[in-house]
Amino acid sequence: MANLQDIGVSATINLLSALAFLVAFALLRLQPINDRVYFPKWYLKGIRGSPRRSGHVHNFVNLDLNMYIRFLNWMPAALKMPEPELIEHAGLDSAVFVRIYLLGLKIFVPVTFLAFAVLVPVNWTGDTLEHAKGLTYSDIDKLSISNIPAASKRFWAHIVMFYVFSFWTYYVLYKEYKLIASMRLRFLAAQKRRPDQFTVLLRNVPLDPDESISKHIEHFFFVNHPDHYLTHQLVYNANYLAKLVEKKKGLQNWLVYYENKYERSPTQRPTTKTGLWGLWGTKVDAIEYYSTELEKLSKEEDKEREKVVSDPDALIPAAFVSFKTRWAAAVCAQTQQSSNPTIWLTEWAPEPRDIFWDNLAIPYVKLALRKLIMAVALFFLTFCFMIPIAFVQSLANIEGIEKVFPFLKPIIEKKVIKSVIQGFLPGIALKIFLILLPRILMAMSQIEGFTSLSALDRRTAEKYHLFILVNVFFGSVVTGTAFQQLQKFLNEPSTEFTKTVGDSIPMKATFFITYIMVDGWAGIAAEILRLVPLVMFHLKNAFLVKTDQDRDQAMDPGCLDFPVSEPRIQLYILLGLVYSVVTPILLPFILVFFAFSYLVYRHQIINVYNQKYESGAAFWPHVHRRVIIGLMIAQLLLMGLFSMREAEQSSACLVALPIFTLWVHKFCQGRFESAFVKFPLQDAMVKDTLEKATEPNLDLKAYLKDAYVHPVFKDSSLEQITFIDDDEESNSLVPTKRTSRRSSKFPSEDNSESDA
Amino acid sequence: MANLQDIGVSATINLLSALAFLVAFALLRLQPINDRVYFPKWYLKGIRGSPRRSGHVHNFVNLDLNMYIRFLNWMPAALKMPEPELIEHAGLDSAVFVRIYLLGLKIFVPVTFLAFAVLVPVNWTGDTLEHAKGLTYSDIDKLSISNIPAASKRFWAHIVMFYVFSFWTYYVLYKEYKLIASMRLRFLAAQKRRPDQFTVLLRNVPLDPDESISKHIEHFFFVNHPDHYLTHQLVYNANYLAKLVEKKKGLQNWLVYYENKYERSPTQRPTTKTGLWGLWGTKVDAIEYYSTELEKLSKEEDKEREKVVSDPDALIPAAFVSFKTRWAAAVCAQTQQSSNPTIWLTEWAPEPRDIFWDNLAIPYVKLALRKLIMAVALFFLTFCFMIPIAFVQSLANIEGIEKVFPFLKPIIEKKVIKSVIQGFLPGIALKIFLILLPRILMAMSQIEGFTSLSALDRRTAEKYHLFILVNVFFGSVVTGTAFQQLQKFLNEPSTEFTKTVGDSIPMKATFFITYIMVDGWAGIAAEILRLVPLVMFHLKNAFLVKTDQDRDQAMDPGCLDFPVSEPRIQLYILLGLVYSVVTPILLPFILVFFAFSYLVYRHQIINVYNQKYESGAAFWPHVHRRVIIGLMIAQLLLMGLFSMREAEQSSACLVALPIFTLWVHKFCQGRFESAFVKFPLQDAMVKDTLEKATEPNLDLKAYLKDAYVHPVFKDSSLEQITFIDDDEESNSLVPTKRTSRRSSKFPSEDNSESDA
Repeated sequence: MANLQDIGVSATINLLSALAFLVAFALLRLQPINDRVYFPKWYLKGIRGSPRRSGHVHNFVNLDLNMYIRFLNWMPAALKMPEPELIEHAGLDSAVFVRIYLLGLKIFVPVTFLAFAVLVPVNWTGDTLEHAKGLTYSDIDKLSISNIPAASKRFWAHIVMFYVFSFWTYYVLYKEYKLIASMRLRFLAAQKRRPDQFTVLLRNVPLDPDESISKHIEHFFFVNHPDHYLTHQLVYNANYLAKLVEKKKGLQNWLVYYENKYERSPTQRPTTKTGLWGLWGTKVDAIEYYSTELEKLSKEEDKEREKVVSDPDALIPAAFVSFKTRWAAAVCAQTQQSSNPTIWLTEWAPEPRDIFWDNLAIPYVKLALRKLIMAVALFFLTFCFMIPIAFVQSLANIEGIEKVFPFLKPIIEKKVIKSVIQGFLPGIALKIFLILLPRILMAMSQIEGFTSLSALDRRTAEKYHLFILVNVFFGSVVTGTAFQQLQKFLNEPSTEFTKTVGDSIPMKATFFITYIMVDGWAGIAAEILRLVPLVMFHLKNAFLVKTDQDRDQAMDPGCLDFPVSEPRIQLYILLGLVYSVVTPILLPFILVFFAFSYLVYRHQIINVYNQKYESGAAFWPHVHRRVIIGLMIAQLLLMGLFSMREAEQSSACLVALPIFTLWVHKFCQGRFESAFVKFPLQDAMVKDTLEKATEPNLDLKAYLKDAYVHPVFKDSSLEQITFIDDDEESNSLVPTKRTSRRSSKFPSEDNSESDA
Repeated sequence: MANLQDIGVSATINLLSALAFLVAFALLRLQPINDRVYFPKWYLKGIRGSPRRSGHVHNFVNLDLNMYIRFLNWMPAALKMPEPELIEHAGLDSAVFVRIYLLGLKIFVPVTFLAFAVLVPVNWTGDTLEHAKGLTYSDIDKLSISNIPAASKRFWAHIVMFYVFSFWTYYVLYKEYKLIASMRLRFLAAQKRRPDQFTVLLRNVPLDPDESISKHIEHFFFVNHPDHYLTHQLVYNANYLAKLVEKKKGLQNWLVYYENKYERSPTQRPTTKTGLWGLWGTKVDAIEYYSTELEKLSKEEDKEREKVVSDPDALIPAAFVSFKTRWAAAVCAQTQQSSNPTIWLTEWAPEPRDIFWDNLAIPYVKLALRKLIMAVALFFLTFCFMIPIAFVQSLANIEGIEKVFPFLKPIIEKKVIKSVIQGFLPGIALKIFLILLPRILMAMSQIEGFTSLSALDRRTAEKYHLFILVNVFFGSVVTGTAFQQLQKFLNEPSTEFTKTVGDSIPMKATFFITYIMVDGWAGIAAEILRLVPLVMFHLKNAFLVKTDQDRDQAMDPGCLDFPVSEPRIQLYILLGLVYSVVTPILLPFILVFFAFSYLVYRHQIINVYNQKYESGAAFWPHVHRRVIIGLMIAQLLLMGLFSMREAEQSSACLVALPIFTLWVHKFCQGRFESAFVKFPLQDAMVKDTLEKATEPNLDLKAYLKDAYVHPVFKDSSLEQITFIDDDEESNSLVPTKRTSRRSSKFPSEDNSESDA
């Protein structure tokens, strides 16, 4: 086991490497040429313009030495922006996300102080390890609970402190949940008029043989929400069209690339090959080839576009139904429409940009089946992911490759290459899997049928959290694969399992300290350097950019990677809670992680990230729940630990804690969760009334007209397209009742408003 | 272990005793004097009149011999009534309750046939027990899975059959859930106008220093449901008043008793003593004494009544808010009103008679605390109930009594009394506890804060089910107290636990067969005889009845004892599922129980029970869930059983079943549960529209005026009482906006209706 000195060395190395990243960042960010990599947010906001006015060197490299001296001044700058401004600037999602790090600090700063003031002296004077013979131990162990003799009365100090820590965590969690719930409500109340406030996502519209989908929806809502229904927007199955648009964009990029190339060296027309990736096939003139390809694709796209908007089969039995008031939309989103709960499903419409269009048309039975299959798949992925990787690893050795590709034999047999293959390939298989894992999990969430990107992110984070918990935390504490752990868990008494795990916890402290430094500290420092976007931007800049607009598109501000980052935070919170009484020396490392991350992410959300959606911190209930899970795990493991140290009484004293944790969870859930799920009628009414007073002549229908159009239709000029819906509106076969209603609607708009 | 013959004898005895009950019932029910005990429902419906026109003997004893010959003809009569008529006659709750027995039959009739056709031959020819030496076994064991040698291929028959049984159960459960959901929706749709259709129970009204509760509610709903709010009814804390009324009724009974006595023997005025139970204290003239007491109490009651309706402190921060349409009530019940989810809580109002008035005013934090405490209490009650009973038992022996009451020594030491004490007292303590248990559980549910009797019943059933499951099922299979089981469960591997339990299941078959006969068969036969109500009725009839009205009050029709009966059915379903493949010989006994119970309860709900409320089969999701739990337990135990018989492969084949069961549960829940929880807007709108067409001039406000008045106020003439609420209505300080609204409401009623 490592001693304090080893840890010190390791910490120094990691600190230095983190510092190197930071210095690199500080230097790179001062170069104007990198401005769009490190400050894209400001460009997107239109506040920063392009610096490249002339070809002067000042515009590429910063020569002002004064700025280099203050190279760390981004840190106070990141902290300077007050929170309300931050919410205004970056959105509530981002502002609340960095609060998770703050939550970590709030929990662990007092815990660290208390642990060092009380538990470290208690442990240090435990005197067990010094008197034990034949045991090798380190200074760290002397500071940990291992130094307390079995059945000692000193354990009471740990019990009491753990109670204090637990209750402090409850308190912080409760306060934070309350604050964020009120922040969310204030945020929603302060929001400007947005289409999703008036709109409900309607799914599983039953098919009617006599009526079109549009008619059917209209009739249903005219009957069941007579005073409130305003309009609706149908959803087209434009998945193939979206694919074409995507493909066209790629071809466009190539065309621009070759045109640029030709511009720079006009003597030689660039050529390409027609086969895969331009590597095989006949050689052709590149610009000509891509021009014709683009033309072909444009034609196909137009045809497809026409087909989608005119073919009734391209309609999905889903729609965005809009109401005259926010009150009515809130009512419709929260109530059940039909006695059959699998049709006419209504829920709050996500923001237009938040919608995951592919999943809007899944019937109920299919959805239930998909969820079952994905649950089973997740189980196998979590517990058995090592099996296919081991299989790939067994294939990816020298002999395997020689067998499959015998012609590669002479190359492989060379010494350098051989050692590379033998050294790296097995590791690479695992590394590739771990890099791909978030995407795999995201794909699984997509199959489950969520309809918004934010829900997908939350769901993926849940899956990733499970994976980390099983494979990183338990996988490190209990040696062996996750599947072996599962077997152990099933075949051992449940108390025995917590005991073995609890017992091995103190021994793993040094491992986790190193893990925190490598994964946490260095990872965060790498995050701020943004190496991949940096390289990508300069590549694009060199080959694809012609106009300022192109340069804007070449920027990749990225966004918060919630599904990956949040579960990682949860792991550190769990580690902190578990080791708070076992090995308090671990706590400062976690504190450094939280403080540093808070700084970095605050800087990033101010200067870099551009969120794809704004869910209004809808993820907080998940964050809260996972901290509760972590607390629960810590409590159970400590019970196991104490009963292994023959402190059965003290272990029994801890029984109340998990029950209390569960209760705190239920309590907070009942108290605050609805703020994240429902929209209270009172607030809706306030906003409605206010709006009516300030803008009595608002034409809401015009405002909502194209809010929920599939993005591929937004790109093109919308005026040219006549949607089916509009065709019908002018249809003379509309029943009389509806026409009279329709004709009287516009003059009576004021009436209905004065009613409300 | 018992063999087939023993079981046969036991079955005969139980059948005979059940038959004796039935004959007694058949004879007693034909006597006109018992008519009100066995057919109270018809009296309450006003269809049967009092038979006692003259003092003729025919009115007391039935002398028509023909009727005695057909003494079992109540059985076909019970089955004759078709279901729609039954729903009309006894309500949906009762009709669906007897369908639980039908569900049992539907599941187990095919299962029994298949088990006897396939598994019994397979077991019988297993030949293990015959060749085993030194083992005593019975014929029953030869028919059970015990007769199959370890690791035999014959287990595949059991696996396959268990899959068939499970899927058949899923199918029946799905079908039944679907049917009952549609029955419920049809029932609700067909209901006449009822106050609860328009009304929402509002709880946790925040207190406002400037406004009274009534005003505050009115303002809130005028603002947030402007087009729909109609009126509201405040709730008074009349718990003390209700107690007084109850006490008065008791005194009245005594007065009548003594008056009757005096009438019969006018020579001697009856006397009573003023102390406890009329046993101690000064002797007084009874009629005079009770008259003055009654007068005093009446005065106190009037004072309290006045105090309640005039004292603002007697108002509870809860109310019944009524709307103009069912649509609006459905909207308000399903939505969240305020951004703080612990105030302005709305839910569907229960029927007026279904309300549990004591619980209407519990704030959120208290409710959460009460739930926590009750959960802990339930845990201890379930697992540690033997501890206090053992303590009482240890006290209730001869020495204990002699110690506490030394003066009783000479009496106790007598031989007869001694043996009675020693033989009965310990058993009596347990018996008393078991009799009191449903009441204890009900009291616990009341503390948890449910607001309707139906919800209390459902919750109590849940608790009782847990108790039965742990103490009857697992307590019989695993010997030892529940607490010992729990320890075992915690200290053994979870797989090990299912293995031990699974292994001991075949051995307990004969015990459960006896249990089914004694508890099931005889219990049901006793149910139909109604011994306690029979005796009580005749006692009351002899001493208290003067008029026909009195006689009506002396009837005690009772009602379905859902919290006790339903968990018992669940136990039998669980037994059937577990033993379906283990010891199929048990199945016919369960079939007899279900068929017989179906008959008896159908007779009882037609002729006897008078339900206290009508929840529209709201309990079905609970029934469904508990069958699912039973199925899950059976599946896990069978996995344990098979792995004990060295049939690990077959055991592994069963892993999919619990997952699938869980999925079926989720699927059915998503598909049908909302029919029991929510009220779809479409259906509300249909009813509203229909009503508007048929009764355009309905004065809904007058109709709802006193619908939700506390029952103690209903007894007295309501006209005399002026409620605070009415006072306020005429208050001139009402803000102008409201008054104008109010004044314009009545003429504009038609307007708002034509809008909808």
